[in-house]
Amino acid sequence: MEFNGVPIDDTYAEAFPIWISRVLITAATMDLAYTAAVEASGFATSCIGCTAECGVDTFVPAEETPDGRPGYSMLICNPSKKKLKEQLIERIGECILTAPTTAAFNGLPGAEEKIPVKLHFFGDGYEYQQKVGDRDCWAIPLMGGEFIIEEEYGAVKGVAGGNFFVMGENQMAALVGAQAASDAISGVEGAITSFPGGIVASGSKVGSKKYKFMNASTNEAYCPSLKGKVEDSKIPDGVNSVFEIVIDGVDAETVADAMGAGIRAACMIPGVKFISAGNYGGSLGPHQFQLKDLF
Amino acid sequence: MEFNGVPIDDTYAEAFPIWISRVLITAATMDLAYTAAVEASGFATSCIGCTAECGVDTFVPAEETPDGRPGYSMLICNPSKKKLKEQLIERIGECILTAPTTAAFNGLPGAEEKIPVKLHFFGDGYEYQQKVGDRDCWAIPLMGGEFIIEEEYGAVKGVAGGNFFVMGENQMAALVGAQAASDAISGVEGAITSFPGGIVASGSKVGSKKYKFMNASTNEAYCPSLKGKVEDSKIPDGVNSVFEIVIDGVDAETVADAMGAGIRAACMIPGVKFISAGNYGGSLGPHQFQLKDLF
Amino acid sequence: MEFNGVPIDDTYAEAFPIWISRVLITAATMDLAYTAAVEASGFATSCIGCTAECGVDTFVPAEETPDGRPGYSMLICNPSKKKLKEQLIERIGECILTAPTTAAFNGLPGAEEKIPVKLHFFGDGYEYQQKVGDRDCWAIPLMGGEFIIEEEYGAVKGVAGGNFFVMGENQMAALVGAQAASDAISGVEGAITSFPGGIVASGSKVGSKKYKFMNASTNEAYCPSLKGKVEDSKIPDGVNSVFEIVIDGVDAETVADAMGAGIRAACMIPGVKFISAGNYGGSLGPHQFQLKDLF
Amino acid sequence: MEFNGVPIDDTYAEAFPIWISRVLITAATMDLAYTAAVEASGFATSCIGCTAECGVDTFVPAEETPDGRPGYSMLICNPSKKKLKEQLIERIGECILTAPTTAAFNGLPGAEEKIPVKLHFFGDGYEYQQKVGDRDCWAIPLMGGEFIIEEEYGAVKGVAGGNFFVMGENQMAALVGAQAASDAISGVEGAITSFPGGIVASGSKVGSKKYKFMNASTNEAYCPSLKGKVEDSKIPDGVNSVFEIVIDGVDAETVADAMGAGIRAACMIPGVKFISAGNYGGSLGPHQFQLKDLF
Repeated sequence: MEFNGVPIDDTYAEAFPIWISRVLITAATMDLAYTAAVEASGFATSCIGCTAECGVDTFVPAEETPDGRPGYSMLICNPSKKKLKEQLIERIGECILTAPTTAAFNGLPGAEEKIPVKLHFFGDGYEYQQKVGDRDCWAIPLMGGEFIIEEEYGAVKGVAGGNFFVMGENQMAALVGAQAASDAISGVEGAITSFPGGIVASGSKVGSKKYKFMNASTNEAYCPSLKGKVEDSKIPDGVNSVFEIVIDGVDAETVADAMGAGIRAACMIPGVKFISAGNYGGSLGPHQFQLKDLF
Repeated sequence: MEFNGVPIDDTYAEAFPIWISRVLITAATMDLAYTAAVEASGFATSCIGCTAECGVDTFVPAEETPDGRPGYSMLICNPSKKKLKEQLIERIGECILTAPTTAAFNGLPGAEEKIPVKLHFFGDGYEYQQKVGDRDCWAIPLMGGEFIIEEEYGAVKGVAGGNFFVMGENQMAALVGAQAASDAISGVEGAITSFPGGIVASGSKVGSKKYKFMNASTNEAYCPSLKGKVEDSKIPDGVNSVFEIVIDGVDAETVADAMGAGIRAACMIPGVKFISAGNYGGSLGPHQFQLKDLF
Repeated sequence: MEFNGVPIDDTYAEAFPIWISRVLITAATMDLAYTAAVEASGFATSCIGCTAECGVDTFVPAEETPDGRPGYSMLICNPSKKKLKEQLIERIGECILTAPTTAAFNGLPGAEEKIPVKLHFFGDGYEYQQKVGDRDCWAIPLMGGEFIIEEEYGAVKGVAGGNFFVMGENQMAALVGAQAASDAISGVEGAITSFPGGIVASGSKVGSKKYKFMNASTNEAYCPSLKGKVEDSKIPDGVNSVFEIVIDGVDAETVADAMGAGIRAACMIPGVKFISAGNYGGSLGPHQFQLKDLF
Repeated sequence: MEFNGVPIDDTYAEAFPIWISRVLITAATMDLAYTAAVEASGFATSCIGCTAECGVDTFVPAEETPDGRPGYSMLICNPSKKKLKEQLIERIGECILTAPTTAAFNGLPGAEEKIPVKLHFFGDGYEYQQKVGDRDCWAIPLMGGEFIIEEEYGAVKGVAGGNFFVMGENQMAALVGAQAASDAISGVEGAITSFPGGIVASGSKVGSKKYKFMNASTNEAYCPSLKGKVEDSKIPDGVNSVFEIVIDGVDAETVADAMGAGIRAACMIPGVKFISAGNYGGSLGPHQFQLKDLF
């Protein structure tokens, strides 16, 4: 099949379960909330080398936040529930509590699973309980004012590693195709792209053929400059650059929506020549997203 | 003394040694370089809870980079040289190698101390050596193109925790004062402010009086809402909000320059009423920055 | 009455009819569309001295645009329908046609009034008709690619000059209150704030008492620094700075929504002390927005 | 000749004299100054259809501004000195005076030619003279605070229309090449690129062959989609998209510097295939910039 004239590979993305919490950060202005969300989402591209996979999810207007101020929600994802708890504590404590005028609310209030995040002890006894909208919160006196925080954050078993490859006739076509895809996915609530600017330049394979101490290494089958030098190149004729989009989301439907929106957007960019996706033959991940089912 | 009519406290900031490396990230466009630098600098406000203290340092124009493309330099700071090495590897590997069109150069080529960062093994044998400008680099074939990286990064023993307090007659005056300070410090090469937007809303004390399991807790002496409730409040009359600026820099002179630039900028904002700084009585940190010496 | 503890003056904003067209700008990426919208909306704060009042209205996702690409809509406003036509032609021709990868669609397709914008003549005979989604368009060959444009743009008689005053205990409180208001209004579809950052620092009165050649001059009754120096000061006790928000919208209901959202947002900012609005005694403008009716 | 493997056409850019003033806008924060500069620079791509050609020039740090606050300078350009005066008055009056916390200083204090900009009459008699640094200024009481403005602005006879063409193997390569060029030129003090994002997608010829009422029309010789359909196509083999960069600067040397920096930057982008420039055979513009002389 094809979309806007771009062939879509008859393959699937293979994806994995991951624990996800959502933090809703409000602040005096949109800009202050966004700054905190970006800091708290940083250094969090892949759990291979980072302590979490994170990203800014969506803007939440004042009418929909507990404290009537504008906010941004972010996702924090980790395969281990225990590590997710650690990351919630550290990322809220180091990056949101420290940011001017912010509050941190549970962004998944309906989730059955709850993770305790007892950061109110930072108040050293001066903290006190306060109802904010319909939420039971703690108010912590700070130098800059008071920080409002909930004590528990919902967690769900979501999906990590939804993905597709944007292949272009040259690097800039593939790059702008990937940017357009990342733009589109930013509009899908509950899904994030955790890599820089939402794009992976260095799609990898598990392990390494040559260096046994490496957990991951370049995926030579998809490196255009190695076409003709490796036996199993997967680079179609006319393709000279590939960027990967990797998506984490709160459930499979959300990841599918994000993949569909991203692929359609990439296909609108002149010079994008082919869309494919990454899998491990279906042996590893319980989630399989057939590209043809996304349209 | 005072500056622009704002009294400057007769005190000093106490600061500590820290190991610092500088990574120069270049890319096809300024925006792509900046996006990578922000991701690589994220979740890095304080080594109390983060794996490093990081920040974007300065823009570096194409004429001054090894590959003739625009770039941003960032600092990565950790008290332990061993952990600094880990952080260099992880932050370059997860956040710069993965970002579109980037290259990562040693931003302290003159430093005697060198940290090996052997990320070229990601190339799984397809990597090759390449001279870029005057630098010996590795080129790693990637899906998106080729990643250029040096093998060693300079490190220096710098200074962490240079600081001052911006005290305002209300929260917004103190906040904009702190923003102006952060703006000014962004122009000082070799110095960063690692907190969100360069500002600390939650200045802390070591440990906790009430909760023995806490490494740090709110600094009640500087919480305006606790004035009258704590015995040792340090909040001057007329002050109702305090934001702290914390600076890491490659040497003491740079930190002093950054403190001076930041304080002068804060004092230009109407409603900023007092400038002070944090110390531990001089018993802990070998560096002492007297505020009066900054002018 | 009051909101979040901030008194709301028992007064009204007086507003005027204005002709409004809406242009939907799509592009390869959100950033490219936004850049064009900002350029086309520039130098357009007030028809007193500018050729139009303009502003970016809302983001329009790819699913809702005729060409399936992301876009931003902008409003172009002028009391004269003839001048609105001129401005449509000039602002699309100089600022959107010239911008990379853009298309310009009629953002008010349901409006009965249509304004002809025959920019396809720029094609010098090489232009050709093309259906894009459900729209009849022209495609104009350009150096950079092809520009897609409709021939007619809807126009409605909307409302200009919806307004309110954000009064703060000092300049920074009033400023951040106004920023929060502008943020909130940016989420109201069909309403814009045309001044820089959505804020007016220099609210004016018609004419001048001293300089007869001036069409407008400072509104001394609302200048905090002139309190005590002018007889009719309207500055309440405890107020030391006032910023005005001025709103244009496609109809009265939209302007009322925007005023309400903006006032509520401003009242969330600590240090905002009073909300009022500007009118001319009801003698000039046919639209009157009572502040108390907005809640 | 070639640069980074990209052939540079053996031709020249033809350019014209233009009157230029420079306004230095300072504000409480960098962001507030930039917002005002962008609004004041808007709707100002080409004097063919706009009232001026404008652009943000450079950031000016607090140490170098008269009032010790951070600022951005912008250029305002018009072939007519009389119209430049009008534009200075309107753009400062409508877009800078109205912006929060700003001041407007003469950015060309050394220029012999001075343009009177008597906006202090806006003060309606409440304005007063004030020395700011070494400048004689007026302070105008406003609602939001006080506006500081000089009475005269320097003007120089600069150069408009310095230009080059970035030709790419596809649209995205040419686009990112042009973005990189625009980035590079933003670092050249005294030079601006007035089009959206610094890029012209719709390079034009004077007049129209088919529609006599048009002042300008598409330059079919440089439209890739018309190659093979027009007799005099100037599109080299392998080129499928062309973006133009147009530069105004305070003198010929500055424009040459900007052209050189921009071309070098464009040539770093993969897929950029050819650089040329536009001229009218040398009959119209007194300035000729040979591309080969820029290296």
